[in-house]
Amino acid sequence: MTDLAVFGAGRIGRVHGLNAASLPSVRVKYLVDPVASEQRAGLAARIGADIVSSDTVFSDASVDGIIIASSTDTHAGLLLQAARAGKAIFCEKPVSLDFVTVEAVTSAVETSGVVCLLAFQRRYDPDFRFVRERIVSGEAGALEHIVMHTRDPAPPSRAYVERSGGMFRDQAIHDFDMARYLLGEDIAIVYAVGNCLIDAEIGAAGDIDTAMVTLTSVSGRFVQMVNCRRAPFGYDQRLEVLCSKEVLYVENRPQRGVTIADADGFRASTPMNYFIERFADAYRNEMAAFVSLIETGGRPLAGIRDGLEAQRIAEAALVSMQSGMPVRIGPDWRP
Amino acid sequence: MTDLAVFGAGRIGRVHGLNAASLPSVRVKYLVDPVASEQRAGLAARIGADIVSSDTVFSDASVDGIIIASSTDTHAGLLLQAARAGKAIFCEKPVSLDFVTVEAVTSAVETSGVVCLLAFQRRYDPDFRFVRERIVSGEAGALEHIVMHTRDPAPPSRAYVERSGGMFRDQAIHDFDMARYLLGEDIAIVYAVGNCLIDAEIGAAGDIDTAMVTLTSVSGRFVQMVNCRRAPFGYDQRLEVLCSKEVLYVENRPQRGVTIADADGFRASTPMNYFIERFADAYRNEMAAFVSLIETGGRPLAGIRDGLEAQRIAEAALVSMQSGMPVRIGPDWRP
Amino acid sequence: MTDLAVFGAGRIGRVHGLNAASLPSVRVKYLVDPVASEQRAGLAARIGADIVSSDTVFSDASVDGIIIASSTDTHAGLLLQAARAGKAIFCEKPVSLDFVTVEAVTSAVETSGVVCLLAFQRRYDPDFRFVRERIVSGEAGALEHIVMHTRDPAPPSRAYVERSGGMFRDQAIHDFDMARYLLGEDIAIVYAVGNCLIDAEIGAAGDIDTAMVTLTSVSGRFVQMVNCRRAPFGYDQRLEVLCSKEVLYVENRPQRGVTIADADGFRASTPMNYFIERFADAYRNEMAAFVSLIETGGRPLAGIRDGLEAQRIAEAALVSMQSGMPVRIGPDWRP
Amino acid sequence: MTDLAVFGAGRIGRVHGLNAASLPSVRVKYLVDPVASEQRAGLAARIGADIVSSDTVFSDASVDGIIIASSTDTHAGLLLQAARAGKAIFCEKPVSLDFVTVEAVTSAVETSGVVCLLAFQRRYDPDFRFVRERIVSGEAGALEHIVMHTRDPAPPSRAYVERSGGMFRDQAIHDFDMARYLLGEDIAIVYAVGNCLIDAEIGAAGDIDTAMVTLTSVSGRFVQMVNCRRAPFGYDQRLEVLCSKEVLYVENRPQRGVTIADADGFRASTPMNYFIERFADAYRNEMAAFVSLIETGGRPLAGIRDGLEAQRIAEAALVSMQSGMPVRIGPDWRP
Repeated sequence: MTDLAVFGAGRIGRVHGLNAASLPSVRVKYLVDPVASEQRAGLAARIGADIVSSDTVFSDASVDGIIIASSTDTHAGLLLQAARAGKAIFCEKPVSLDFVTVEAVTSAVETSGVVCLLAFQRRYDPDFRFVRERIVSGEAGALEHIVMHTRDPAPPSRAYVERSGGMFRDQAIHDFDMARYLLGEDIAIVYAVGNCLIDAEIGAAGDIDTAMVTLTSVSGRFVQMVNCRRAPFGYDQRLEVLCSKEVLYVENRPQRGVTIADADGFRASTPMNYFIERFADAYRNEMAAFVSLIETGGRPLAGIRDGLEAQRIAEAALVSMQSGMPVRIGPDWRP
Repeated sequence: MTDLAVFGAGRIGRVHGLNAASLPSVRVKYLVDPVASEQRAGLAARIGADIVSSDTVFSDASVDGIIIASSTDTHAGLLLQAARAGKAIFCEKPVSLDFVTVEAVTSAVETSGVVCLLAFQRRYDPDFRFVRERIVSGEAGALEHIVMHTRDPAPPSRAYVERSGGMFRDQAIHDFDMARYLLGEDIAIVYAVGNCLIDAEIGAAGDIDTAMVTLTSVSGRFVQMVNCRRAPFGYDQRLEVLCSKEVLYVENRPQRGVTIADADGFRASTPMNYFIERFADAYRNEMAAFVSLIETGGRPLAGIRDGLEAQRIAEAALVSMQSGMPVRIGPDWRP
Repeated sequence: MTDLAVFGAGRIGRVHGLNAASLPSVRVKYLVDPVASEQRAGLAARIGADIVSSDTVFSDASVDGIIIASSTDTHAGLLLQAARAGKAIFCEKPVSLDFVTVEAVTSAVETSGVVCLLAFQRRYDPDFRFVRERIVSGEAGALEHIVMHTRDPAPPSRAYVERSGGMFRDQAIHDFDMARYLLGEDIAIVYAVGNCLIDAEIGAAGDIDTAMVTLTSVSGRFVQMVNCRRAPFGYDQRLEVLCSKEVLYVENRPQRGVTIADADGFRASTPMNYFIERFADAYRNEMAAFVSLIETGGRPLAGIRDGLEAQRIAEAALVSMQSGMPVRIGPDWRP
Repeated sequence: MTDLAVFGAGRIGRVHGLNAASLPSVRVKYLVDPVASEQRAGLAARIGADIVSSDTVFSDASVDGIIIASSTDTHAGLLLQAARAGKAIFCEKPVSLDFVTVEAVTSAVETSGVVCLLAFQRRYDPDFRFVRERIVSGEAGALEHIVMHTRDPAPPSRAYVERSGGMFRDQAIHDFDMARYLLGEDIAIVYAVGNCLIDAEIGAAGDIDTAMVTLTSVSGRFVQMVNCRRAPFGYDQRLEVLCSKEVLYVENRPQRGVTIADADGFRASTPMNYFIERFADAYRNEMAAFVSLIETGGRPLAGIRDGLEAQRIAEAALVSMQSGMPVRIGPDWRP
């Protein structure tokens, strides 16, 4: 059996906790969440975990790994403790909103040698993975450019926005990661524009709700991204990769397989709403992958350094938007 | 130059007249229509034709062929005159609403040896033709069964219904023809049910607005058809052919290439409305084919015997619907 | 807690057993399957059930309901025993391949008053259910006709065919049920044609692999069905309902959300393969509904009489195909 | 009658000449092309025009308007002559590859007061126009951002590239125009990246085959464009407009309405190939609009100033790509 502890009983903690608990070889021994709530109690009951403090987890030698799904400000500390304690880590992004901290933690985790899977779940989604594999296999030909669309179904609350680190660090970071993953190389130049066009509350919180980013890779290939806090029809999460032999599209997944036709046309269903539903398979796959890493070794599809590099692009996008200038980045660049 | 005469200045006469006139090697010398109207005058002017009587056409040795797009009750007489006069014939379906007349005219036309193209325009449509060729070439594998949908955008007027010969002879006849064309063999058993479910006026005229037909071919393969006088979204004209290696679908052609997405879903355009628009290419192709037959010989995709055989199925469908029993047909069967 | 017993540890028994076990208020106390196998042991372990004989189940008063997923020849006996023992019943179709037995068992179960859900899972599928509700609500307008396509991905084994009762009782029965469910009335006339066009082994087993059925309802509305043991692209399970205001389509659910474009066109994914995957939600929903019926009462979407009526149509289809004649049925008709 | 003269007997001259000649009120009196060729003779014959020199056209007072479809280096001179001669002008883009010349000619044409339609045909395409009207009407809500894809089916010849003015002035200029048209305002900031990733011959000619452009409008809204000289599947010409109530998509128009399904998926047709086919309706509409401007007055959807403004953006894109910096533009900016 593999013994795990889950940090965080919120929305994403619940997803990861249930997925972990459903794996035959896993026991979710502990749930850590400082706030007593029905949600915490309910999740603990469902997954058969004891509600304990963080200290209990790290002093229990039988715990093989931890799942970090608590609030962002706790991530860095938990990562460092787990690295010291030699426990495998499954960590939600971002490592920290402070880039220097991300660098330091990345270093520490890498030095420790513990297993660390950074939860860029899109890498574990069957559709995105299929695209990646078709490129790697050579069937699609040489990758020439990428276009990505990410639009949330509705603007988040002002409270969420205020502690999110801003749209680039919070939402676009998944696209930055996907860009690196599909290109198979790093980004050299980042240009970003952004504005608050949709929800004045977001602007009042100092953030944007609409952004367009152009990335130029080290070898001179391009990525174009649209990021937005609302689409009138719901969650919009698409990818288009132009290769020399094929164009590969990841489409939205419809909620329903029913089409309704009348004098106004043929109406197909809105997409799955929201990421919890759209990426249900991806979340299951990445948790299974984490447990498999603990049990049989190997490398995660995304490690802590991938988190650092995606965040470097996010920081550069922020600098670019604020300065109006493209930003040239490299391994030593920091905001 | 090929000299042609058009009979009928109505909707379909106009289509055929304009298509003929647009061909570089064609002169539309005459237009025949007993009713003086703006439409007749306008069409004559557009195609540069003289408005004359039928006699003028048949006594003018320079006329190479005639286009029969007049009312159904005139078809048989014109076909016989043209056969006698040795003029090539392009004829709208049906030859006659009276099956014995169809048999007699078919015989006479075949004996005369004149070129005769029966205007089952769907055989000349690029999409339906592509499907036929993919089957003939063997790429799709062995044809196993066919499903067809034909739904008009709205019920026709009672006046139209009353002189139409009924839904089987008027509308479904195109599907009966397509069934034979794609199967490459004749039909042995016809079962049809029908009812008036949509427009009571059609029932009052003694016709039906909804029918379902099952055909069994001589070799034991099947065709299923839905025929209907209305679809809420407009014109519905689809085909599905199951073969051993592929399924081939002819889809509706959208009017517009715009999709509109909102909280109710993704709305694609209604189909082209109506057959004049949907089959514009087919009408052009069949007229070009007719002229090519006159000028360089060959065989039409549909001849007068194909009209007879499609109508035999229509007659059998009517008998089946009225009796409630399947009808076994063959070359000697008549209603 | 609701205590259940599962009969049958095969493919569908596993689905139902796991779904039952995943419900918070359910304990799957027993698993009954006469054949010792890894599969049986594995399922028992997964759902925490004891492997017992049928007698143990019926003599244990704490068992609230049974799930019949064993071989068809055992269904009738188990239904009668459960009715006598007053246990709620979840039963896979068909009740029996012998129609007189179906009638007798239906009577006995109805007289007993036990809860009985007949597992026509399609009624519990979100897409089919959405269509049904849109019709019932009046939004779609009056239902005029229905077209259904059911094609398996590949022909079943000869052994399966031989004990299946034939394509009408085995496969088309789901469509017969859906026809009644959507029409909200019974069928009056059945016409069916069938042939062995795809797999000679099926013919050798005395069955067909291709069938077309036309149903006329008591009020004169129509249903047309294609049933087939193979589609080149996989599982084909579609529905099209023409109503006066809308046409409603249940489309196939794609396996993958990736489109690949090259010089040959835009290639979308094949559908989910096979019913276990396609109807995963439906199976979950119907098991939850069954438990809810036990715990809080109500009526199942499909009861044992619905099984009888769907099978009556299947029997009539067989008679029709063999005789070449339409068959008029009613509450007293039997083959 | 409206008398017109066509300059240029090449591919696009043929399209415009035939469209003009097909209008009932138009006589195409002259065709001007310095190179004797079968193409020139054939077109003159088809449209009934005399082949003459430019002088004949401008000295013939009966000529109401001219259609400039000759090589780019002749446009400016013809525009100035027509302005002086008071003849209405239909002009293919671009006015000139030299921006100062474009400014001077724009001024001269505007001062002259002659009708001048600049042939940004996409404004006359029914789909793009539908989108524009839906935005203007308010149905779609406030426009927030635009995404455009333009990919040619295959790289042009090196000879074409060399005299094209480069991808921004030649291809992307249509997208720059569409951006202004849909936004209803001017562009303030242009950022472009480009590279030669597909065809080394294009690089050898000093041009690029792949570009990504981000436009920021005066009011702070965004446009993102992908421009490319090849798509593996053919011509890719799409638009996506995010508005507050709706997202509007202009999709590619398929060549064929046939889908082919097999074990590899559902294959839909490649798009219409190429712009001559895709925009056949647009070309017809813009010629009819031009004649209507002459006959009854009004304003063209695109005038010569729209050509100037689109080209200003193209020039800025080139400067941006070369400098690596965004370029801020305004009415006085020139390269």
